Formats: sequence, structure tokens, C-alpha cells
Amino acid sequence: MSRRRLPGQADRPGYLITLEGVEGAGKSTQLAGLARFLESQSVPVITTREPGGSPIAERIRALLLDPANTGMDETAELLLMFAARAEHLAKRIRPALASGAWVLCDRFTDATYAYQGGGRGIDLGRIGQLETLVQGALRPDLVLLLDLPVEIGLARARGRAAADRFEAETLGFFTAVRDGYRARAQADPARYRVVDASHPPAVVGEALRGHIADLLVAAPGESR
Amino acid sequence: MSRRRLPGQADRPGYLITLEGVEGAGKSTQLAGLARFLESQSVPVITTREPGGSPIAERIRALLLDPANTGMDETAELLLMFAARAEHLAKRIRPALASGAWVLCDRFTDATYAYQGGGRGIDLGRIGQLETLVQGALRPDLVLLLDLPVEIGLARARGRAAADRFEAETLGFFTAVRDGYRARAQADPARYRVVDASHPPAVVGEALRGHIADLLVAAPGESR
Repeated sequence: MSRRRLPGQADRPGYLITLEGVEGAGKSTQLAGLARFLESQSVPVITTREPGGSPIAERIRALLLDPANTGMDETAELLLMFAARAEHLAKRIRPALASGAWVLCDRFTDATYAYQGGGRGIDLGRIGQLETLVQGALRPDLVLLLDLPVEIGLARARGRAAADRFEAETLGFFTAVRDGYRARAQADPARYRVVDASHPPAVVGEALRGHIADLLVAAPGESR
Repeated sequence: MSRRRLPGQADRPGYLITLEGVEGAGKSTQLAGLARFLESQSVPVITTREPGGSPIAERIRALLLDPANTGMDETAELLLMFAARAEHLAKRIRPALASGAWVLCDRFTDATYAYQGGGRGIDLGRIGQLETLVQGALRPDLVLLLDLPVEIGLARARGRAAADRFEAETLGFFTAVRDGYRARAQADPARYRVVDASHPPAVVGEALRGHIADLLVAAPGESR
């Protein structure tokens, strides 16, 4: 791995690192492991998730995931995702970054491109318009994509609790979501790292820590 | 009043007529009266409201009005308004118009321009971007603005139930909302009718029925 500073990193104290992937890719487990790793290196870090991550955004998440809301209009779904993101950015992500903390986020705007763009077929230009409206110039410094065959992910996810409104979607939907993620990663290799999440969690975790370590080595500041 | 067909009317069976105004302007009362008037003329009509008007949109409304959500990010508020509108259009307004019904709606996108634009100070161009994204070319055929001094409206509204998140705003906020509404009406006089809502409800109702009658006389179709 190169130890160079990644292109596209913002000029601000903290880094925004997002974990992306279809259901069952192991994002939650890996996120917790990465946070412990950063803490062990004395890096201030918060972990959070989307949709959600702040009180009002979590209420919007509940609307989005509720199986009772099957048949929700696709544009409404898209706008709810970005409404939750606007709240999350204002109340949690931007303050944390400004304080110098690193932010590890379980899903972010790449998920909107993958699910609402790839999965639902919403025009990617419309998503880009909302991205700029809500985020301004803010983009993740590093996107870690946990990639795995959709069948494996769904088999893992369906062993868990009752399916939410997205988990109840079809195999074709999730295949389009995965393709959406991979297309994003291929288009901007400097900012994305794709990790094969069909390997055991410990191996996946090792690969992810390697990518984070690249950032650590590149990051300025006496505590790093 | 002229009996000519209003400019800007869409080429579709039903008309979309919206009632706008600050708190306490008497919109709900007048809406019910106008619906009865149209029914008496054998015009198929539905009444509805924003934010809300369909099950998911009403859940979004609850989030928007809940005083517990004070301090909501302004962009999040704006996106929630349009998310509710997208649902409402898909599930209620567009189907009604397509079936030939007239739609009487208590608040619509002019309220977003007035409250989020005038009141909160959000750039009107951003609101216009979302309006096009959500509505395409759909605009109300007629906007009835119930205008009255903010102090009178608030005194009426505060005699009612506990204040929601918007009703708890300041006099300065509502003055900016009123100004926002009036600026919209002045910019497009063909599509707006401003009625002085400080008069008694019966007089205001008479004026509103006159404006609706203009549309009735102009509308094609054997039942009219």
C-alpha cells in the first residue's frame, strides 16, 4: 500500500470515513473494530450511521425502514434520505469533524447512489443535485466498500431479525445496488477501497485496518 | 371579475386550487365552504392539506410540527416538506386530478416559499430546484391567498390548541412569511387571488366563491 496522502482529502482536522455495502456485508462489526483500532492509536473518533445518527434523523430512519410504508413514492424516499443526512451533518458529523474527531459512518451518500440510484433507478444527476444542496463540497475522505455476492449477504442478513422495508426487496434489487456501489468505486479509485467481504471477519478487518493505517501515517498532528 | 379562462391552466380534467395564508387566516373553514359550493354545482371535489394529505405524508407532517423537534436543521425541514409533497402528489393529488376531480388543498408549495423561503431565509432558487424535481411542470391552477395582518392571525390561532413547532415562531418570522406570500402573488397576478381575511368569514367566503365561479364558468364539460 502506498503511504501517500490520498487525493481528495479535505483541509480540516478530522476525517470522514464511510463503510458501505449490501445487507450482511458485516459493516457494523467492522465499524466497531475500526473504532477500537483508532482509539488504540489515541485518535479521537465517533461512530455513527445513516440514515439516522441524530435524534431527528433517527425518527426519519424509522419512517424509511418501517415495512408499513411499503409503496412509498421513490422521490419521497430520496428526499427523506437527504433530509436525515442534512440533520445528521448539522448535529453530529460537522461538529465532530470540526472538533478534530474522525467520523466512522455506517453508510452515507454512496448508499443513496447505490440504493435509490442503482436499486430504484432514480436518475443519478438528480441525486447529485441533492448531494450538493445538502453537503456543499463535503465528501467522505475514504469510502470502504465491503463487497460480496448478494446471495451470501442476504443469507447472512436474513438469519437476523425481521426484515425492514429495504431488506424485503428482491435479489434483482440488491444486485443493482451492488453494481451501483462498484460503479462508484471504479469511477474514483483514489477515494474508494473495495474489500472482499466474503472472507472471514478477522481477515476483512485486517484489510480495513491497513487502509485506515494509510490515513493515519499520512495525517498531520502530534497525537498521530 | 373577468369570465375568461385563467392563463396557466393545465390541460387536464381537474383543477388544483390551493388556499394559502398565515396562521389564523381561516383557511380550514373556507376550504370546507368552497368544497360544499363545488358539490352544490355537481363538481367532483376532494379536500386535502399540506404537509400531509396521505398516510406517509401525515407521518412526515407529525415530524415537522412536533415541538420536540425545535432546532431542526433548515435544509432538513425543507426536504421533509418536499418529501411529504412527493407522497401526497403520487398518492392523492395526481390520481384525483386524473379522475377529473377538483382538488382543494390547504397549503401547497407557496407555503414552502413563504415559510422556508421568507420565514427561514432559504434561497428561493433552491426551493425552485426542489419544486421542479418533485412536481415536474405541475403548478396550482389558482392560488387563493387569505391575507391579513400577522397580529390578527396569531391572536386567532393562539386562541386554539397548543402551539405546534411553527406556531411557536416569532412575530418577525410570520411577518416575513406574509411578505413572502404577497411577493409571490404580486409576481404572478393571473394565477393568484388575494383576499383580505380580516373581514368576517361570510364575506371572505363570498369573495372566494366568486373566484371559484370564474373557473367554473370557464371550465369545459357538460356537468359544469
